[in-house]
Amino acid sequence: MSSAEAIAKAAKNAFEDSQLITSAERATALHRICETLQSNKAEILAANKEDLKAAQVEVDAGRMSESLLKRLDLDKGDKWDSMLQGVLDVAALSDPLGIVSYAKELDDGLELYRVSCPIGVLLVIFEARPEVVVNIAALAIKSGNSAILKGGKESNRTTQLLAQAIAAGLSQSSLPDTYVQSIQTRAEVSSLLALDQYIDLVIPRGSNSLVQNIQNNTRIPVMGHADGICSVYLDESADTEKAVRVVLDSKTDYPSACNSTETLIVHESLLHSVWPVVGRALLEANVRLLCDPATLSVLQSSPTPPSNLSLAGPSTPEAYTTEHLTLTLSVIALPSLPAAVRFINAHSSHHTDCIVTESQPAAAAFCRGVDSAGTFVNASTRFADGFRYGFGTEVGISTGRIHARGPVGLEGLVIYKYMLRSTGATGHVVSDFGAGGRRYKHADIAPTLPF
Amino acid sequence: MSSAEAIAKAAKNAFEDSQLITSAERATALHRICETLQSNKAEILAANKEDLKAAQVEVDAGRMSESLLKRLDLDKGDKWDSMLQGVLDVAALSDPLGIVSYAKELDDGLELYRVSCPIGVLLVIFEARPEVVVNIAALAIKSGNSAILKGGKESNRTTQLLAQAIAAGLSQSSLPDTYVQSIQTRAEVSSLLALDQYIDLVIPRGSNSLVQNIQNNTRIPVMGHADGICSVYLDESADTEKAVRVVLDSKTDYPSACNSTETLIVHESLLHSVWPVVGRALLEANVRLLCDPATLSVLQSSPTPPSNLSLAGPSTPEAYTTEHLTLTLSVIALPSLPAAVRFINAHSSHHTDCIVTESQPAAAAFCRGVDSAGTFVNASTRFADGFRYGFGTEVGISTGRIHARGPVGLEGLVIYKYMLRSTGATGHVVSDFGAGGRRYKHADIAPTLPF
Repeated sequence: MSSAEAIAKAAKNAFEDSQLITSAERATALHRICETLQSNKAEILAANKEDLKAAQVEVDAGRMSESLLKRLDLDKGDKWDSMLQGVLDVAALSDPLGIVSYAKELDDGLELYRVSCPIGVLLVIFEARPEVVVNIAALAIKSGNSAILKGGKESNRTTQLLAQAIAAGLSQSSLPDTYVQSIQTRAEVSSLLALDQYIDLVIPRGSNSLVQNIQNNTRIPVMGHADGICSVYLDESADTEKAVRVVLDSKTDYPSACNSTETLIVHESLLHSVWPVVGRALLEANVRLLCDPATLSVLQSSPTPPSNLSLAGPSTPEAYTTEHLTLTLSVIALPSLPAAVRFINAHSSHHTDCIVTESQPAAAAFCRGVDSAGTFVNASTRFADGFRYGFGTEVGISTGRIHARGPVGLEGLVIYKYMLRSTGATGHVVSDFGAGGRRYKHADIAPTLPF
Repeated sequence: MSSAEAIAKAAKNAFEDSQLITSAERATALHRICETLQSNKAEILAANKEDLKAAQVEVDAGRMSESLLKRLDLDKGDKWDSMLQGVLDVAALSDPLGIVSYAKELDDGLELYRVSCPIGVLLVIFEARPEVVVNIAALAIKSGNSAILKGGKESNRTTQLLAQAIAAGLSQSSLPDTYVQSIQTRAEVSSLLALDQYIDLVIPRGSNSLVQNIQNNTRIPVMGHADGICSVYLDESADTEKAVRVVLDSKTDYPSACNSTETLIVHESLLHSVWPVVGRALLEANVRLLCDPATLSVLQSSPTPPSNLSLAGPSTPEAYTTEHLTLTLSVIALPSLPAAVRFINAHSSHHTDCIVTESQPAAAAFCRGVDSAGTFVNASTRFADGFRYGFGTEVGISTGRIHARGPVGLEGLVIYKYMLRSTGATGHVVSDFGAGGRRYKHADIAPTLPF
C-alpha cells in the first residue's frame, strides 16, 4: 500500500469509526485542540520563524511576493489568538448534523426521515496560510467529516507542527487522532486524487488554474472556490447617491477579494447624468478605469475635467473577463436591462452581481435573469461572504452549480441520508403495496428522529 | 463552431432566456408537448417499429438481449398512455423553484434570501428506453433546466421523432424550442463533455462503467446513478417472521432492480434459530445462495433437508462485492453488530442497507454507523425509490455524497442563489460596518421573496 493510500484509508476508517460520536464530544475535541495548540505555541512559532526566514530569502531574490510572506506570519498582531478563538467559535455553532429535512409516514408504522450527516473524507488544498490548517480542522470536526490537509509548501514547517498539535488534541478526545491528517507534497495530492474509494470531496482553495487542474485529474467531486468577476449594473432608474456608494464600496473596500467588483455596466441613458458623477468619484479614489468609447468620451469631454483623468483609458475586449484584483475597473455602456443581463451572463464568473435601481420590476428581472450565486439590489458585492450572511463561519465561496453555491458555511460540508423505520408487527415489504394491496400514505410527520 | 458546441451554446442560451418564465407557463408547455406527442403518435410508433425490426435482427444473431428488445417497444401494453400521463403528473407537481430556504435581515433594510433556482444545462445519457426521453424532458422543463439528451443508439429512430414532437410542443409555448435537444452519437457526447462553460451537470444512467468512464473524462459535475449492492443484516434480536418477510421481499420482489438485496449478513447467534428458517424460505423461492462455511454447513446438516438444497453452495470473496441482479444472494455470518456495520461499509455500494432487529439501540447504531444513502429498520431495501418516498417522480438514485443522495426527485435538479436587497435610503455598503460602525443583525425574517 502506498503512503497516500495508507493516509486515505486511515481517514476513511477514522470517518466511519466516528459516526456515533456526539456533537458534545466533537465540541470537547475542539477545546482539547485549542489547549494543545496553546501549550505548543512556542515550538510552533519557532517553526513559523524558520518558514519566514526561508521565505525572506525567496522574497529578497525576487521569487516570492511580499504579501505571501506576510500571510505566512502566524505571530503577527492577534493572529494566534484569533486562530484559537475561531476554533472555539466553530465549537459553539449549532450542530449541522442530525437535522431532519423531510419526514413522512409512508404507511401505518413506516416512517421515513431525511437526516443531515457528514459527507465523508475531505481533501482540502490551500495556500500558504498556516492558520487555515486549524480553521479547516475545526470545520471538519464540527461537521463530522475527516480531513486530509495540504497547505502551501512555504508553510510546511509550521503546518506540520500545527497538525501534530491537532492530533495530540484529538488523542485526548473520543475522535481518532487520524481524523485530521496533513500531507506535505504535491505528489501525495496527485496520488490521493486517484483514490475515489476513500476520498469523497476535494476542496481546492486558490487560483482558477489550480481548481481546473484538479477537476481535470480526478473523478472525486470538486467544490471549487474559484475567482470572482463581479459586476455592478447602473439601471436606468439608478439613484445617483446609491450608485456612487455601492460602486465605490464594491470596488475599493478590498480590491483583492473575490467579491470585489471588476466591471461596471452603465445604462446608456445615464451617460450624461449618473455616470459622470460615479466616474469622477472613482477617479478621485484612484481607481483606474478601462472604458468603452461611450463612457470614456463623456469623462474626457467634461467641461470641468475630473481629477486623475489620466487614470481613465480605453478598454480591450479582454478587460471584461479579467479579474483585476486591484484598483482597476472595466466600464461599458449598454442600451437596456436585458442587454446588461446577457452581458453579465456571458462575461461574469457567476459569483455576485448587483443592480442599482429604483424600479422593483427591474430588480426582480435582474435577480432572476442573472445566473450568479448572488444577485444584489442596491447593495455592495462585498456583502457576499459567509460571516456577513450570518453563517458564523465560511468554508469558502463556490461558483459551482451543485451542492453548495455562493458563500459556503458548515451546511456545505454535510449531506443527508434516508432512515426508514418499520414499527409494524411483521416489518414492511413492498409486495404488500400496489394493485389491490396497501396504498402509500405519504403523510407529514414530526421531523424528529425517534431513534 | 463544432456541431456539439452549437448545441451546447443553444442549450445555454435557452436556459438563460427562460429565467423569467413562470411555473404556470412551464406547466402549459408540458401540456402542449403531450398534445404534439399524441398527434404524432402514428409516425412515432412507426419509427419505433423500425427500431424494433433492426433490434430483432440483433437478437436473432445473438448480439442483443431479449430484455433490451422489450424495453425498446413503445407500443407495449399501456406504455404510450402512461408516458403521456407521466408528463401531466410532472406538470401537476408543486414547483421546486422560487422556494426560500434562508431569510435574514442583515441590517435595517437589508434583506437576504436564499432562493431555489435551476442548475442550468443538463446532459443526460441513458439506455435504449425511448419513453425516458419524454420523462426527462418533462423533469427538465418543470425544474427550469434546459437539457441535451442521448438515448441508447438502438432507439435512435424513435427518440429522434419524440424529440421533434417535444420541440414542436415547446414552439407552442413561451419556452424556446431548443430547450430540450437530442443527440444521436457517442462522438457528440465526447465533445459535449469538454464544454464545461455551457454544460452544468451530467447525469449518466446506466452501468457503473459508463458512469466511471464519464467521470474520468469531464470536469463537469456528474450525478451518478450507479449500481446497487444492498444488504440485509439479521441482528441478534431479529424477529423470525420479520426476517423472512424482509429478506424475501428485498431479494425476490424485483431482482434486477438496483434496490434489491445482494448480500445477507446473519448474526452468529442466529445460526441455528432464525437463519435456517430464512435460508429454507429463500431456497423455496428458488434463490441461489452463495454461503460462507458457517451458514452453508447449517443448511447442509439439517436433519430435514430444505427443498432446493442444491441451490446452496460456497461463496467466494468476490460474491460480497457483486451485484447479482438475479435470484442469487451472498450470505455471511458475522459475530456482532459493529462487525456487520464494518462489513457493509467495506463491501456495499452505499445505496441502501437494512437491519432486522427488535432492539432500538441496535437500530440507531446501525442507521448512524452504516454509511449508505438509505439505512432501514425492519423494512425491505426495495422501498428505496422516489415514488415510494413520496417525491412524485424520480430522476434516478444517486450513490454520490454531494448535492443529492439516494432517490432523487425534482429537488435534485435545483440549486439556489442568494438575493440581497437594500431598501435603505442610500443603499448598503460594507464599509459602514465593523469597528465603531454598524453591526450585523442576522435576524430571521419571513421566507417570502418581496420582489
